[in-house]
Amino acid sequence: MEELVGLREGASKKPVPLQELWGPCPRIRRNIQGGLEWLKERLFRVGEDWYFLVALGVLMALISYAMNFTIGRVVRAHKWLYREIGDGHLLRYLSWTVYPVALLSFSSGFSQSITPSSGGSGIPEVKTILTGVVLEDYLDIKNFGAKVVGLSCTLATGSTIFLGKLGPFVHLSVMIAAYLGRVRTKTVGEPESKTKEMELLAAGAAVGVATVFAAPISGVLFSIEVMSSHFSVWDYWRGFFAATCGAFMFHLLAVFNNEQETITSIYKTSFPVDIPFDLPEIFFFVALGAICGILSCGYNYSQRTFLFFLKANGFTSKLLATSKPLYSALAAVVLASITYPPGVGHFMASRLSMSEHLETLFDNNSWALMTKNSSPPWAAEPDPQKLWLEWCHPQLTVFGTLVFFLVMKFWMLILATTIPIPAGYFLPIFIYGAVIGRLFGEVLSVAFPEGIVAGGRVNPIMPGAYALAGAAAFSGAVTHTLSTALLAFEVTGQLVHALPVLMAVLAANAISQSFQPSFYDGTIIVKKLPYLPWIRGRQIGSHSVTVGHFMNCALTTLAKDMPLEQVIQVVISTDVTQYPLVETTESQTLVGVVKRTHLVQALQTEPASWAPGQQPCLQDILANGCPTQPVTLQLSLETSLHETHNLFELLNLQTLFVTSRGRAVGSVSWVELKKAISTLTNPPAPK
Amino acid sequence: MEELVGLREGASKKPVPLQELWGPCPRIRRNIQGGLEWLKERLFRVGEDWYFLVALGVLMALISYAMNFTIGRVVRAHKWLYREIGDGHLLRYLSWTVYPVALLSFSSGFSQSITPSSGGSGIPEVKTILTGVVLEDYLDIKNFGAKVVGLSCTLATGSTIFLGKLGPFVHLSVMIAAYLGRVRTKTVGEPESKTKEMELLAAGAAVGVATVFAAPISGVLFSIEVMSSHFSVWDYWRGFFAATCGAFMFHLLAVFNNEQETITSIYKTSFPVDIPFDLPEIFFFVALGAICGILSCGYNYSQRTFLFFLKANGFTSKLLATSKPLYSALAAVVLASITYPPGVGHFMASRLSMSEHLETLFDNNSWALMTKNSSPPWAAEPDPQKLWLEWCHPQLTVFGTLVFFLVMKFWMLILATTIPIPAGYFLPIFIYGAVIGRLFGEVLSVAFPEGIVAGGRVNPIMPGAYALAGAAAFSGAVTHTLSTALLAFEVTGQLVHALPVLMAVLAANAISQSFQPSFYDGTIIVKKLPYLPWIRGRQIGSHSVTVGHFMNCALTTLAKDMPLEQVIQVVISTDVTQYPLVETTESQTLVGVVKRTHLVQALQTEPASWAPGQQPCLQDILANGCPTQPVTLQLSLETSLHETHNLFELLNLQTLFVTSRGRAVGSVSWVELKKAISTLTNPPAPK
Repeated sequence: MEELVGLREGASKKPVPLQELWGPCPRIRRNIQGGLEWLKERLFRVGEDWYFLVALGVLMALISYAMNFTIGRVVRAHKWLYREIGDGHLLRYLSWTVYPVALLSFSSGFSQSITPSSGGSGIPEVKTILTGVVLEDYLDIKNFGAKVVGLSCTLATGSTIFLGKLGPFVHLSVMIAAYLGRVRTKTVGEPESKTKEMELLAAGAAVGVATVFAAPISGVLFSIEVMSSHFSVWDYWRGFFAATCGAFMFHLLAVFNNEQETITSIYKTSFPVDIPFDLPEIFFFVALGAICGILSCGYNYSQRTFLFFLKANGFTSKLLATSKPLYSALAAVVLASITYPPGVGHFMASRLSMSEHLETLFDNNSWALMTKNSSPPWAAEPDPQKLWLEWCHPQLTVFGTLVFFLVMKFWMLILATTIPIPAGYFLPIFIYGAVIGRLFGEVLSVAFPEGIVAGGRVNPIMPGAYALAGAAAFSGAVTHTLSTALLAFEVTGQLVHALPVLMAVLAANAISQSFQPSFYDGTIIVKKLPYLPWIRGRQIGSHSVTVGHFMNCALTTLAKDMPLEQVIQVVISTDVTQYPLVETTESQTLVGVVKRTHLVQALQTEPASWAPGQQPCLQDILANGCPTQPVTLQLSLETSLHETHNLFELLNLQTLFVTSRGRAVGSVSWVELKKAISTLTNPPAPK
Repeated sequence: MEELVGLREGASKKPVPLQELWGPCPRIRRNIQGGLEWLKERLFRVGEDWYFLVALGVLMALISYAMNFTIGRVVRAHKWLYREIGDGHLLRYLSWTVYPVALLSFSSGFSQSITPSSGGSGIPEVKTILTGVVLEDYLDIKNFGAKVVGLSCTLATGSTIFLGKLGPFVHLSVMIAAYLGRVRTKTVGEPESKTKEMELLAAGAAVGVATVFAAPISGVLFSIEVMSSHFSVWDYWRGFFAATCGAFMFHLLAVFNNEQETITSIYKTSFPVDIPFDLPEIFFFVALGAICGILSCGYNYSQRTFLFFLKANGFTSKLLATSKPLYSALAAVVLASITYPPGVGHFMASRLSMSEHLETLFDNNSWALMTKNSSPPWAAEPDPQKLWLEWCHPQLTVFGTLVFFLVMKFWMLILATTIPIPAGYFLPIFIYGAVIGRLFGEVLSVAFPEGIVAGGRVNPIMPGAYALAGAAAFSGAVTHTLSTALLAFEVTGQLVHALPVLMAVLAANAISQSFQPSFYDGTIIVKKLPYLPWIRGRQIGSHSVTVGHFMNCALTTLAKDMPLEQVIQVVISTDVTQYPLVETTESQTLVGVVKRTHLVQALQTEPASWAPGQQPCLQDILANGCPTQPVTLQLSLETSLHETHNLFELLNLQTLFVTSRGRAVGSVSWVELKKAISTLTNPPAPK
């Protein structure tokens, strides 16, 4: 209290009271006090963004960690049950299959009963939302529980169903971001809070990725690449901040829980640092990238076709519409039966969990060379020290196991993506890519058992490095991103293969991007979500198309001098959300926009106040308090398609009006744009 | 030839000629042939971007490598001269100082005589160009030689002058990109080539960074953060591609030249992977980041102030204007005298080159602990196996040397940045940060000689890790970027300190961004380059400011019905580059834009063709072929400052016209925007 008085008086330059001077160094104390006050003011302003970013990161890390913890327990219980149940084949089979079937049908039934939109990865929907489209209720916090419980059940099925958690985590994180954004708007009441909320959503997407893999840098970049076509550096910084908080918290929990000694990478590798690879190997890495690119095209094509088939086929579409849990259970039975270890499951390393898959695949040594002379016996239980032996079935050898895995998982993955449960599809793709790379690496290591000789020194080929490159290249090609390379480095903690992996990812992307839409775009197309396609640069004549060619000319304008009856008729006969307001019916000079809801309200509340003789017109309603918005941006007839596309993409617009010499002549929305772009790609048949 | 005939005929389904059927498998051969043709067509289209991107990356890598090679030789010659010249102090002093003095004055004189704008880093100018401002001749390829020769001379002075090559390399790379863009436009003749050329420039900036450090990922991100406030994912992909080509080529040259055995990082570190740091150390990393942030504020402030002082002071401004080589020589004498090793130079490790500085600073071991009991004697020549001993002068100890280095280099660096030569300022800042971190780490290692005990295990503190964090945090804070963290990982090849380094960089940036403009922005301010400031989110009332408040109302319009004399008068009395064209003087309805050059041309060429009685007006000139451009985008009076700012930033606009009900009422360019934003920050004094 004394200091406060002193401070206040110091500020107003009044003589310092005596009791103030009694303490030691009154001036310094006052200065320190002032500095602290200033710091406090700077740091603890309500509504300051960084609060919310920290909260977002920490919350998501807690959820991610808690989920991992729970799932780990459930999976362990399942393993214990399977081990202890005895040797009877029927019992073992039942214990292996009933678990995932029950979990999946519960996951499907529970989450679908709360929100019908909770199935799938969620990334396509978040992508659509980030372009500015409002998807009703999709980010409502009440869906949160459904998604968390459903996802936990999905993940608890482990490697049987083989699904990840990336997509739903992005969705969860964006949900929390939207909630925090609303809290922020309420406490601060800032204008332009809409922009701020969108900024939080973008950060949310980054946090979602970062907390799943505890990889902040690639989390931010991956979310940028997947979600948007343009990005502001400002958002990128905020994403980094939130993602770092999230990743730090995630690691911290692992350390506190004695799982790790300190903060290290999750799938640590130990490639040699001095000579990780020889120069000629670069060629093989690029070739691997190309293979991954081609396979990713096949995967994306098959996945999209299968989704279309499910929708078109009468039986499955009915099944999916009415009894989703049944469909989930059926799919789970198929998937679990195939992975049943005493069945064909032991040809595809199905006793390993998904993280064990990755750990073993990134192993330095060549399994083919190690099992060349003495084929190790098949263990009844996987040996924790030699988990990689699961990949070397004595009958099939390493190559057979890897090829069998690739062939079977190809359609199993596609089947798994159709189950209507909250699930992520990135990790399975990442592992699939690692298997492709491993197979390629093992073949190389057998072809060059002495390693590739260059410059006199010999060093053996490490199939683990190819597995790393394959994982990054295949997942990058399927999702059309480059940052999977960085993700591979962040989860393994090593950067020694930076260039070869990057080149593999570039090669894979070059192929997949020229032939197929990405996995997420494919889902957007199948789900018919609003989406703005890219304009391919070299389409002939794309630069001469102007707004005049493709705008919506059937514009319903409201003139200020329109009689009320006519206004009512217009409002009844159309159902757009907003009407362009023009000066007079004759001049059609655009002066503003009036929202339908406002207009309806105004028409309903004040119908009787007019004098009987006078014929009321729209002008009177507006003068009586019906709000109008100004038109802040107008297109002309001569604006090119490219320019308009740019504007819509950059500013996340929904509709723009077209004026010609002040007259409102049309409007453009993403529907018209999409039509114009698709006409460019597939020109209509000449009449 | 045969195959070609077969192919053509196969395509048109004619019967295959007999000689075709003689070869084995004619159908397969034809199919392969067709596939190859298709591939060839896809790959070798003239004007396809990726050609130019590869060319850009490879060219820059070649230049970077050739420059490194030449500079290495020159530096070695200088070292040899200094070693062999004998023990006479005068001779040694002269051999140490004359070399850099001669090189710097030549660099300054040569480059300034060719292009006056070649001094400095070039990044501020490139940043301005990338926002769409045309800086005359700045990207002309004829400046290329001046910049290359000047930069080589600058770098050949080695650690005496202590400058890097990042900035000029970005400039060089953008120059080549601009040249390639022009070549592309000429060969392809595509519409919208302007956009394509800008895209190439953005890729050029990324390549510049990537080829200096052979770090593609951080190269792209650093260039994005420094150059732009928004970026498109499309540019980012192209940047990645070009930067990877450049980095690969750079590494390849090193391998072919037997400098490296294979592609590895340039400043390889060997931090332990298992437990690189203990959890409590995170706190120290963040504290180090905060210290770097505070120091960076001091550095940026002093640097800007000193530049202003040089401009304001009569003597120095005259010296810099008339005899730049003399100023360079004077500065070189000062800098070289201080670094003279038998003088005070041996207190600041001046016998090491800049890359040796970095290599030693990233060393794992604690020098303070190693030299605690037995101070090693001062060697006459630095021991190549124990270069770090240069940092442990027996009289000053490790701490003294590091502190002395920090104190002296602070003002020496600022002095060096004022010399009008092509030079980069990033690497010195990076090393300076590493020294800060090293000092911090050494202090910690002495304070906790046993390491920080956590969880029962003891592991010693590695000052090298703090040097890494310090380098990333200080350089990040000075340039306002986060990707320096990634750069630190890429040049060392290790990611084990991902989280602590990232947190240090975030802390440093949080401090520096709230108090000082970045190094490059500071230069833009001092050089008075056109530049659009940010709107700080929380400025009161910024959301209610609309275009009507700040637009330029003094708009000179040309009406179609204006008599020619009046038009001529307008053209003579104003010097804008374009005029808004309105329908009639009375209505002022905006219909297009006419360029001044076109108008002048039209007025000059066709003055006599009019009939004598008729009074010609602008309409006639336009009808006779003077080209006009349509107005594709119009603002309204109600558009907010924020929206306009966004538009200008996103679309790199120069001017937009404001219309109200079709009438042209004003215009907005970045000048008005900047004024409006600065009024927000410093409201004008009430009258």
